[in-house]
Amino acid sequence: MDALGRHRRSGVCATLEAMLPVCILLNAASSLKAEDGGGIEELATEKEAEESHRQDSVNLLTFILLLTATILTIWLFKHRRVRFLHETGLAMIYGLLVGVILRYGIPATSYHHQTPPSCSLKEGPVSTLLLNVSGKFFEYTLKGEINSREIHNVEQNDMLRKVTFDPEVFFNILLPPIIFHAGYSLKKRHFFRNLGSILTYAFLGTAISCFVIGNLMYGVVKLMKLLGQLNDKFYYTDCLFFGAVISATDPVTVLAIFNELHADGDLYALLFGESVMNDAVAIVLSSSIVAYQPSGANTHMFDAAAFFKSVGVFLGIFSGSFIMGAATGVVTALISKFTKLHCFPLLETALFFLMSWSTFLLAEACGFTGVVAVLFCGITQAHYTYNNLSEESTKRTKQLFEVLHFLAENFIFSYMGLALFTFQNHIFSPIFIIGAFIAIFIGRALNIYPLTFLLNLGRRHKIKGNFQHMMMFAGLRGAMAFALAIRDTATYARQMMFTTTLLIVFFTVWVFGGGTTPMLSWLHIRVGVDPDQDPQSSVDNFQVLQGDGTQAEGQSKTKQESAWLFRLWYTFDHNYLKPMLTHSGPPLTTTLPSYCGPLASCLTTPRAYENHEQLKDQDSDVIHNDGDLTFTFGDSAITANGASGSGADMAGGSGWSANGKRSGSTSEEALERELDLREQELLSRGTRLVFPMEDHV
Amino acid sequence: MDALGRHRRSGVCATLEAMLPVCILLNAASSLKAEDGGGIEELATEKEAEESHRQDSVNLLTFILLLTATILTIWLFKHRRVRFLHETGLAMIYGLLVGVILRYGIPATSYHHQTPPSCSLKEGPVSTLLLNVSGKFFEYTLKGEINSREIHNVEQNDMLRKVTFDPEVFFNILLPPIIFHAGYSLKKRHFFRNLGSILTYAFLGTAISCFVIGNLMYGVVKLMKLLGQLNDKFYYTDCLFFGAVISATDPVTVLAIFNELHADGDLYALLFGESVMNDAVAIVLSSSIVAYQPSGANTHMFDAAAFFKSVGVFLGIFSGSFIMGAATGVVTALISKFTKLHCFPLLETALFFLMSWSTFLLAEACGFTGVVAVLFCGITQAHYTYNNLSEESTKRTKQLFEVLHFLAENFIFSYMGLALFTFQNHIFSPIFIIGAFIAIFIGRALNIYPLTFLLNLGRRHKIKGNFQHMMMFAGLRGAMAFALAIRDTATYARQMMFTTTLLIVFFTVWVFGGGTTPMLSWLHIRVGVDPDQDPQSSVDNFQVLQGDGTQAEGQSKTKQESAWLFRLWYTFDHNYLKPMLTHSGPPLTTTLPSYCGPLASCLTTPRAYENHEQLKDQDSDVIHNDGDLTFTFGDSAITANGASGSGADMAGGSGWSANGKRSGSTSEEALERELDLREQELLSRGTRLVFPMEDHV
Repeated sequence: MDALGRHRRSGVCATLEAMLPVCILLNAASSLKAEDGGGIEELATEKEAEESHRQDSVNLLTFILLLTATILTIWLFKHRRVRFLHETGLAMIYGLLVGVILRYGIPATSYHHQTPPSCSLKEGPVSTLLLNVSGKFFEYTLKGEINSREIHNVEQNDMLRKVTFDPEVFFNILLPPIIFHAGYSLKKRHFFRNLGSILTYAFLGTAISCFVIGNLMYGVVKLMKLLGQLNDKFYYTDCLFFGAVISATDPVTVLAIFNELHADGDLYALLFGESVMNDAVAIVLSSSIVAYQPSGANTHMFDAAAFFKSVGVFLGIFSGSFIMGAATGVVTALISKFTKLHCFPLLETALFFLMSWSTFLLAEACGFTGVVAVLFCGITQAHYTYNNLSEESTKRTKQLFEVLHFLAENFIFSYMGLALFTFQNHIFSPIFIIGAFIAIFIGRALNIYPLTFLLNLGRRHKIKGNFQHMMMFAGLRGAMAFALAIRDTATYARQMMFTTTLLIVFFTVWVFGGGTTPMLSWLHIRVGVDPDQDPQSSVDNFQVLQGDGTQAEGQSKTKQESAWLFRLWYTFDHNYLKPMLTHSGPPLTTTLPSYCGPLASCLTTPRAYENHEQLKDQDSDVIHNDGDLTFTFGDSAITANGASGSGADMAGGSGWSANGKRSGSTSEEALERELDLREQELLSRGTRLVFPMEDHV
Repeated sequence: MDALGRHRRSGVCATLEAMLPVCILLNAASSLKAEDGGGIEELATEKEAEESHRQDSVNLLTFILLLTATILTIWLFKHRRVRFLHETGLAMIYGLLVGVILRYGIPATSYHHQTPPSCSLKEGPVSTLLLNVSGKFFEYTLKGEINSREIHNVEQNDMLRKVTFDPEVFFNILLPPIIFHAGYSLKKRHFFRNLGSILTYAFLGTAISCFVIGNLMYGVVKLMKLLGQLNDKFYYTDCLFFGAVISATDPVTVLAIFNELHADGDLYALLFGESVMNDAVAIVLSSSIVAYQPSGANTHMFDAAAFFKSVGVFLGIFSGSFIMGAATGVVTALISKFTKLHCFPLLETALFFLMSWSTFLLAEACGFTGVVAVLFCGITQAHYTYNNLSEESTKRTKQLFEVLHFLAENFIFSYMGLALFTFQNHIFSPIFIIGAFIAIFIGRALNIYPLTFLLNLGRRHKIKGNFQHMMMFAGLRGAMAFALAIRDTATYARQMMFTTTLLIVFFTVWVFGGGTTPMLSWLHIRVGVDPDQDPQSSVDNFQVLQGDGTQAEGQSKTKQESAWLFRLWYTFDHNYLKPMLTHSGPPLTTTLPSYCGPLASCLTTPRAYENHEQLKDQDSDVIHNDGDLTFTFGDSAITANGASGSGADMAGGSGWSANGKRSGSTSEEALERELDLREQELLSRGTRLVFPMEDHV
């Protein structure tokens, strides 16, 4: 422990002192170590590495303490039913505070005076560099390019740079669990019912938003040039990139409140679906724009050939990621179907986790986008694999990803708060920032209102005006925009964008996030009543389910509403995919043509026959039966659950859910499932009012 | 995408081809990417970084597929009740296979011909180095020293080096969840009952083993020198270090089998306790020996002053880590007691996870040993915090750490298999290896037999001969020995040790691990009957519990058996610590002297009074009530559970456990808890046959 090392620790301590009594311990340990190693003056590699490791520990510890503080405050807020500030907003505030301390609490020159030594090479940068120090060789790995301004920062304040995480950490470690959880916890019924609208908003809407914002910002940039406020290059493609980055809306804050208040289910599905899918779109869009940039030679202006190439890249990456995600999901479903892994929930959960993670790595290794693949993997897993898992594993996997998602999300938001002060290359340009705020407002408006108008032409169940305003209002920017913006902050333009993105995230999360509850009541959107329970809120969809088999008219409406493409898919999924990949659905032997007989019987498990026997025409879109209802439906409902092997399992499930302790999301799921069961009830009474129409085949 | 990059991917593909059809996809993606970026010849940083990221993804993917294969095979084995090979042994075999493919499947010169460029500096190595390539600066971080032989390896086979993980990953990412889980799932009753013996084996036994092995190996090294088989330096301290590394026994394999077969509870506790604690001892011991080395100047021989200094370091680090772990546990317990966080299981679980992780970071930041701190944190969390958690969180935390532990453990074991072929600096020395095998045998024997003889003098419930032979046999080496050995492989001596350690791990896991079941029956150790259920297997301890209050003799025996120190601790814990940190135990107002009244009532929650009212003299050593029993004991047992707020919760718990689907370990826990409840039953009937004696105060 050399003097340098001790200085450095004291610097960190100065920071932490304000927060917690860890510092005393740190200093004690420091002196303890200093004593025992005091005799050695050698500045060895090992010591350097040890010091760096210790520094990393302190940094991570800072974040963990931040998260702990956030959790405790969230609890207080939930306990007191405070709703004006969501946990993510809170995490940002704590992050900000620590950022301020790190930035201004430590004298900039308190430690590490050294300028890092540099050496020259003629060749380009390589991943591994050897350093020869008097005959001994040391290996160095490339971290990245550093611009001339930053070199001085390296000298000035090493710690601030250290606390600034590698942006790739966000993409490779923090985003995947968030996005997977979004896919896995998707409420399938509401989602699939509104699939057309969701895809329209996500693809067309995000593209509109991206181009509107990009063009408006290009105007702003031109204005800045005129006013002499721009110090460096800022191309048209940079503006478009900004448009893509800032078009990714965040599901977190608003939807947590929706969930808590039990706001309208369709509105929830629209917002959630849009924000989840447009994350994927924004990632691929932004990387397509980056891919466009170099091909456009030096002009950085519009070029039709390059544009279509970028569109090609977009489609290629998107569909590649989609296929990869869906494929992994299907493989997992097949494994879980054809092994008896469900007898060992630990193995099953571990396999599920590994397969879901491998999607990400596989996509990344293939040059597709891991995060997008993970989203579709999550949806596939929820749709197929979930049905094959044991009762216990369904809970375990849900809870595992819930915790990972929660931690990752709060980490990102507290890091955002921190980054406002610790990131060293902020470029605050008032004109750009004001312009951006106006642009995202216009972009969002041109996304929601025109598209809703068009969608309403085709939709039976119109998206009403107050829903549109709510969707407009709920366009928060969050983790994804931040992660995309921080990914590359090498140029002047990117740094300005990063600063602006950060401010937009802060503003939208605090103001729009905090204003969700008042906004809901102001727009007269009914809360507290679950839409599934309330026939008034979405009459045309639900009357068929509420009635007792006499309202054939309702069914036909439902039929008309579903697009033929969706209907086709549904039939195919229900008759072939589900039976092939899960234990539920009708046995393949009954749905496949007779010449496929041997194959069909090979792919059908005894359990599927069993299910079929007991619940013939039943549409088992159910994820898993919930106990509250099992009591009502008795044994036949129990065996309807593809996941449970025996009645005893379900008894377990029933007790579990009977305890009445459910978080917001779980209780809504329960209600959703209840609805599914009602459908089943209708069906098993022989009325065959199927939704959405399996008898159409 | 330059030609180089494409070559590299093909190299990886050649490897993977044997395993899975990923390769086709990889190549497809490669050509897709190659096309769109084909025009650019610039070897940019971004491309390099991207390539390296992709390579990392492929590497991780390899491991994930390995783990997936392992899980599926484990399932097959469990399904077919194969017991001669445990999952860890299996993971090693798969690792070996992939290692062979990586080593011999890829032509060594298939890609990346470049020699990494080197540059010279006069100063010592620094953590950050700047590289100036024609005016552009690139930042490099120090990876470590590399010896002259390795430089050629860098040239030869970059991929093998890449697949070789940073050893610190084992210590900082993989070991903590394994060790925490060990502490958290410790069966407290059996553990505390045998605490004296366990500590003796762990501390004294490991020290004996370390010195015996160290000295024997020094003899072997001398022999090798005589025979001219030693090419480089090999000091006495190196031998001692090897002794410390190889003395850490592994709990995994044998204990999994014990658990499955329901072997004797005390034997289980002795083995598990020893192997868990001696992991901690071995870590600290080995780092003390490293600390000793430089102080001993150039002689590297025995030096009394340096020796006592090392002992001081040992005690300092060990107690520091212990205090840190226990302190974090206590803080978590206090937080969970005084907040109503248990209404929000997700928050509670997240907090629990963060606090447990922060122990590790805190200890590392202070220069103590994170892994050791995490062990004691786990024990403290299980002993105190667990009582305050909600029913759901107890399950969630257990399952979360179970999954993490499972994944980390299998990862380490499959990595071990891989390392045998991919690690490039193996030094196979037959004499050293044979010597080491003999030395660990002798070391283990001198640990178990003499210490057991001494312990039996003091123990009422003797450790019988067959138990001693089983303990001798069960001294497998595993993850910890490997992690310690791989941590530093810079010198010749360390490389030879690493190779030998690897072989010892393979041999012991396969041969001793596989031989556990035959050995148990050969030694006539009863299996299949849970000891707690069977009064014959451990008569003196249990008759008091099996009887109905008349066997006061049994109680006095129990009394005598407990050492006074343990008794003192137990009383203190039961009367002061438990009431202070949890909702269980007698209220502090009744145990603290009257002048502490205000403090006591401030620290006592209403729930504690409630518990006390209903179950006066009850010893609530219970972790949590299990539902099977709640039915029997009715309402009073329900409220005895410190963790559950209302009867409804417990009803949930009861349904849950009633499903009868428990993995091996859970069912044993249930039985253990059942025993605890039986004690409670005895107590609440007023017989006051307390074990271990609370009425003694």
